[in-house]
Amino acid sequence: MINRSGNILITVDQNYLPHVRIMLSSLFINNPGNSYDFYLLHADIPNPALQPLQRYCERQGSRLFPTKVQDHVFAEAPVGSYYSKAMYYRLLAYELLPEHLDRILYLDPDILVINPISELFNLDLGDKLFAAAEHTWVPSLSKYLNMLRLGNYESEGYFNSGVMLLNLARQREEMDKAEIFNYVQQHCKELILPDQDVLNALYGHRIMPFDDSLYNYDARLYKIYYLTSRGEKDLSWVMENTAIIHFCGKTKPWLKNTKGEFVALYKHYMQLSKQIFE
Amino acid sequence: MINRSGNILITVDQNYLPHVRIMLSSLFINNPGNSYDFYLLHADIPNPALQPLQRYCERQGSRLFPTKVQDHVFAEAPVGSYYSKAMYYRLLAYELLPEHLDRILYLDPDILVINPISELFNLDLGDKLFAAAEHTWVPSLSKYLNMLRLGNYESEGYFNSGVMLLNLARQREEMDKAEIFNYVQQHCKELILPDQDVLNALYGHRIMPFDDSLYNYDARLYKIYYLTSRGEKDLSWVMENTAIIHFCGKTKPWLKNTKGEFVALYKHYMQLSKQIFE
Repeated sequence: MINRSGNILITVDQNYLPHVRIMLSSLFINNPGNSYDFYLLHADIPNPALQPLQRYCERQGSRLFPTKVQDHVFAEAPVGSYYSKAMYYRLLAYELLPEHLDRILYLDPDILVINPISELFNLDLGDKLFAAAEHTWVPSLSKYLNMLRLGNYESEGYFNSGVMLLNLARQREEMDKAEIFNYVQQHCKELILPDQDVLNALYGHRIMPFDDSLYNYDARLYKIYYLTSRGEKDLSWVMENTAIIHFCGKTKPWLKNTKGEFVALYKHYMQLSKQIFE
Repeated sequence: MINRSGNILITVDQNYLPHVRIMLSSLFINNPGNSYDFYLLHADIPNPALQPLQRYCERQGSRLFPTKVQDHVFAEAPVGSYYSKAMYYRLLAYELLPEHLDRILYLDPDILVINPISELFNLDLGDKLFAAAEHTWVPSLSKYLNMLRLGNYESEGYFNSGVMLLNLARQREEMDKAEIFNYVQQHCKELILPDQDVLNALYGHRIMPFDDSLYNYDARLYKIYYLTSRGEKDLSWVMENTAIIHFCGKTKPWLKNTKGEFVALYKHYMQLSKQIFE
C-alpha cells in the first residue's frame, strides 16, 4: 500500500548528490510502503545529473521535484567567502517552494534514516515556525552560547539546523527575508555556522524542540548519549529507536579512515545505494 | 526478474529462528531479484513456529522446505553432553536432502549477507567434497593443528564449518556415515568443535578453499585482516567486497554489550527483520 507520506526538502550542490542517494536508499529501505515528495533546491546541477535520482524516486512510488534557484533570486543576499547564497535555501524555503505546501521536513544529506519517520512529519507545531533538535549533551552551555554570542535571550537552546520541520504556512505570514539579510550583514564576522547561527539568533525562541536522540542523533557522540542516559541508550537502543543518524562534523563516514560505531553501517548503505543505481 | 538462484541449507533449533530471520533479511536485501530454495533441517521445531519464516520466503519469491529429522535417523550416532545428533546434519546432509539436489550452500545462522553471493554458488568444485574457508590469520599454525591434534597430515588447513558449499552428488558416492560415527566414538574426548573437527580430520584434504575475507569473514578479526593485508582490507573494502560476515565465537552481536566494528550493522538488521515480520 502506497501512502503519500510527507514532503522532504533537500538543498545540495552536485558534489553531494551521491550522499543524497545514500540517504534516500536508507529512507526507503526503513520506511517501506511510504512514498514522499522530494523538493530539491540547487544552484547549478545539470539536469542529466538529476535524472537517475528522479527515476529511482519514481520506482519507489515517490516524486522528485528539482528546482534550480535562479541567480537573480535573493540578489540582495549578503554572501561571504565560506557561505554562498545556498545557505539561505533552508531558511527561506517558504519563498522558493510551491504555495500549496504547508510543512516540509528539511534533511541534510549527511544522514542515514534507519527507522520509520512518520511521527516526525505529524509533530504538532502549534504556532512555532520550526521544529528542530539540540545536541543536548551540554544544554545549559548551548543556551548561554545563544545568549552571549548570538544575542537571543529568549531562545531555549542552540538548535542544529540539519534536521528541521518547517512550518511553511506560518513562516509565510511571519518571516521576513530582509531581517535575515540584515542580520547576516551586521554579524558576518561572528558567524561560525552561518545558517544555524541565523536560525538560533533570530528564531531560537520560535522553535519547537524534538528529541535529538530520536531524530537528529549526532553520530560522534555515542558515548555522551550512553553516559548521560545512564547506559539506557546503548547500541541496541539506538538501532531500535533512533530514526535519523546525523554524521555531523568533518570526519565524514564516507572517507577512508573514519572510525566510529556507525561507520560500517554508513558504508553498507553506500554499497546498497550503488546496487540500486547500477 | 526472478531467477531460481541456488539452494541453501540451514540447521537450527527453535532458539535460533530469530537469527535465521535476520540472516535471510540481509540475504534478500543484498541480493535483490534472486530467489532461493531453503532446506531447513531441525529436530523439534513445531510447525507454527516455522510458518512466518515460510511466508516471508514466499513473499520474496523463494521457498522454504523444513524437514524434521526423525529420532530414529542416525540412531547409531554417538552423542555427548555438549553435542547432539544435530551436529551431523551438515556433514550428512547428503543423506537427509532430496536426491535431485547436486549442491547446496550451508550457512550458519550467526551471519549477515551484505553483498551478492551468486559467485559462491557457482564455484567450480571439481571432485572436491566441500568448499570452505580457513580463518587464515595463522595459516601455518592451523595446518599444524590439524596434523597434530586431528591426525590429518594431508589437510591444507583448518577449515571453518560455518559457511560451506556441499558437493552432494560427490558426497553420496564417497562419504560414509559409519566412518564419521567411528571417528567421533574414538575421539570424543579430544573434540573441541565437534563437527568442525570431524570435517577437518576426515575431509580436510578434500576441501576446496575459498577466500574467507569474501565469504566467511570472521567479525572478531577486523584488525588482523587489516594488518595482514597491509591496510588494503579496511572498512570500505569490507563493505564493498565481503559478502558474508560470520559472527564467530561467544560474544554474539545480538547480545547487549557486545562491541565491534559490525555490531551496529547487525543490530540494524535485527530491527529491519522485525519490521518485515510484524
